[in-house]
Amino acid sequence: MEFRSVLVTGGGGFVGGNFVRLALRERPSWALTVFDSLGGPPRPVLLGLEETYPGRLRLVRGRVTDEGEVKALLGAGPFDAVVHFAARNPSGQDGGDPLAFAEVNVLGTAMLLEAARRAPGGGPSRFLHLSSYEVYGSSREGIFAEDSPLNPSTPYAASKAAADQLTLAYHRTFGAGTLVTRTTNIYGPFQSEDKLVPAMARAAAAGKPLLVFGDGSNTRDWIHVDDHNRGVILALEKGRPGQIYHLGARCEQSNLTLVRSVARFAAQALGRPEEDVLALIRFVEDRAGHDARRALDPTKAEEELGFAPRVRFEEGLRDTVRGILTDR
Amino acid sequence: MEFRSVLVTGGGGFVGGNFVRLALRERPSWALTVFDSLGGPPRPVLLGLEETYPGRLRLVRGRVTDEGEVKALLGAGPFDAVVHFAARNPSGQDGGDPLAFAEVNVLGTAMLLEAARRAPGGGPSRFLHLSSYEVYGSSREGIFAEDSPLNPSTPYAASKAAADQLTLAYHRTFGAGTLVTRTTNIYGPFQSEDKLVPAMARAAAAGKPLLVFGDGSNTRDWIHVDDHNRGVILALEKGRPGQIYHLGARCEQSNLTLVRSVARFAAQALGRPEEDVLALIRFVEDRAGHDARRALDPTKAEEELGFAPRVRFEEGLRDTVRGILTDR
Repeated sequence: MEFRSVLVTGGGGFVGGNFVRLALRERPSWALTVFDSLGGPPRPVLLGLEETYPGRLRLVRGRVTDEGEVKALLGAGPFDAVVHFAARNPSGQDGGDPLAFAEVNVLGTAMLLEAARRAPGGGPSRFLHLSSYEVYGSSREGIFAEDSPLNPSTPYAASKAAADQLTLAYHRTFGAGTLVTRTTNIYGPFQSEDKLVPAMARAAAAGKPLLVFGDGSNTRDWIHVDDHNRGVILALEKGRPGQIYHLGARCEQSNLTLVRSVARFAAQALGRPEEDVLALIRFVEDRAGHDARRALDPTKAEEELGFAPRVRFEEGLRDTVRGILTDR
Repeated sequence: MEFRSVLVTGGGGFVGGNFVRLALRERPSWALTVFDSLGGPPRPVLLGLEETYPGRLRLVRGRVTDEGEVKALLGAGPFDAVVHFAARNPSGQDGGDPLAFAEVNVLGTAMLLEAARRAPGGGPSRFLHLSSYEVYGSSREGIFAEDSPLNPSTPYAASKAAADQLTLAYHRTFGAGTLVTRTTNIYGPFQSEDKLVPAMARAAAAGKPLLVFGDGSNTRDWIHVDDHNRGVILALEKGRPGQIYHLGARCEQSNLTLVRSVARFAAQALGRPEEDVLALIRFVEDRAGHDARRALDPTKAEEELGFAPRVRFEEGLRDTVRGILTDR
């Protein structure tokens, strides 16, 4: 399936913004509209793109929870595809505001789906909701496949599961071209400072403690943002409506291993002895609703979409840490 | 677990109102607060209850989507338990307004959960969300157990699945006393006129066609509203937080069989020949997202809660149809 006009909600964020950069580079026929609240300082991830790719990027400021704005956006279009990154994500130790998750992630998705369905000309032929493997909760046994039962541990994860179900129901009920990707933990350039990799890198630079929850044995599965976003493009172009695709890089790491890697790369970037930075690691009490193990089986995306991550984890993480510490 | 003060959201509706009647009768120590938009004409289901049970029923008019009202309600309380019936349900052939489902069923539930969590004194010890077996979608193979995967076919079903996940996440993340019951198709007195049983009974009385979707072979599982609500009381009193309980009566019927039964009972109530009313049955094109088969396995509720339906289907349906046609 080919596209010309693609709407990217949340295109000012970490993953969405990297998607915009990648799509402008690797899909020259696409014109992109970014719909984002774009609050706060100008987004470094989008800086200079309008000049570099003239006529191919349009920024629209708005909120997915504003029904009028969403209707106007989709009504004007026309868009061949919608890639829905916009979401409220957890931040900080309290896990964030449960009501905001319900409002932005669930109601916002519902507004986009409904506006897309009612858009002139039948609306976009593809609508992809970006979701997370947090919807599966925790598992000691193994890794999650697309048909694993939903078991979200937190209000955030529940809101993502909810938006997934809404998205897929639009295919089942209305025959809409909706689909879902779910991914693991993402790292890469332009990630916000409160996330694990940037937070650890900056703490290392500042000589502050590197806090590890519990005993650090909780595992997460990691993927570079560009690998993830190549998977999103493949899912848009080749994925079947009504389906879920896992975008993972088969890269499961204990949190302690991950923090130790970041510490080592930070030491290299800073020109300090590795053992000095590793000595900053401290263990703190685990968070409520913190899942013990989470990993994704990406077989379906590999087989159906030809999805194949390219970035080796050690290299990707080293470059990311160096980028953070040299203020790239 | 024993309760004194119980909040019933949506207590002016069909299932919630019948719950209020049953609880006033069978749990004399409970004082009930009904929170309901109570729009439209006075609700027959609640008529006279305040006089019959003095000091035990309080009606509060409000909307679960109004954060201020919900906070004030839960903040004042105090409630030992919340039974959350309030929901926007599908009506008519188009399946209703998808945005209203997301707003009322998901955001409304999120607002109640959050207000309950932040209520003085730790909030209610139990919060029960009433859900539907529609969250499982369709199955040709068998009947659904509590751990069957979520696969909602419609935006309504997706919104109920979403609210379930939010409710259970409050247990996993915050340790709240939240739980979920899921039920089958409910029938009984005071059901709104657009639902299958009342609609068919009234159409029969008016000599209008009795419309059956598809070939009528789609099956649904039926339970009397009082049996269902006894299960809700048991789940509140004996259910474990974080759990889902199925309230079903093991009474699966094809839609055609159900409509034929209603037609026969309507004929009896109206004193007309059964074959005249049966001749009104017409087959019409199936609805979008209409699940082929849906039935519930209530074993867990039977074993853990001692749940045991009492109303025989033929008797319950006959009484219900007679009640509708004699304007009880």
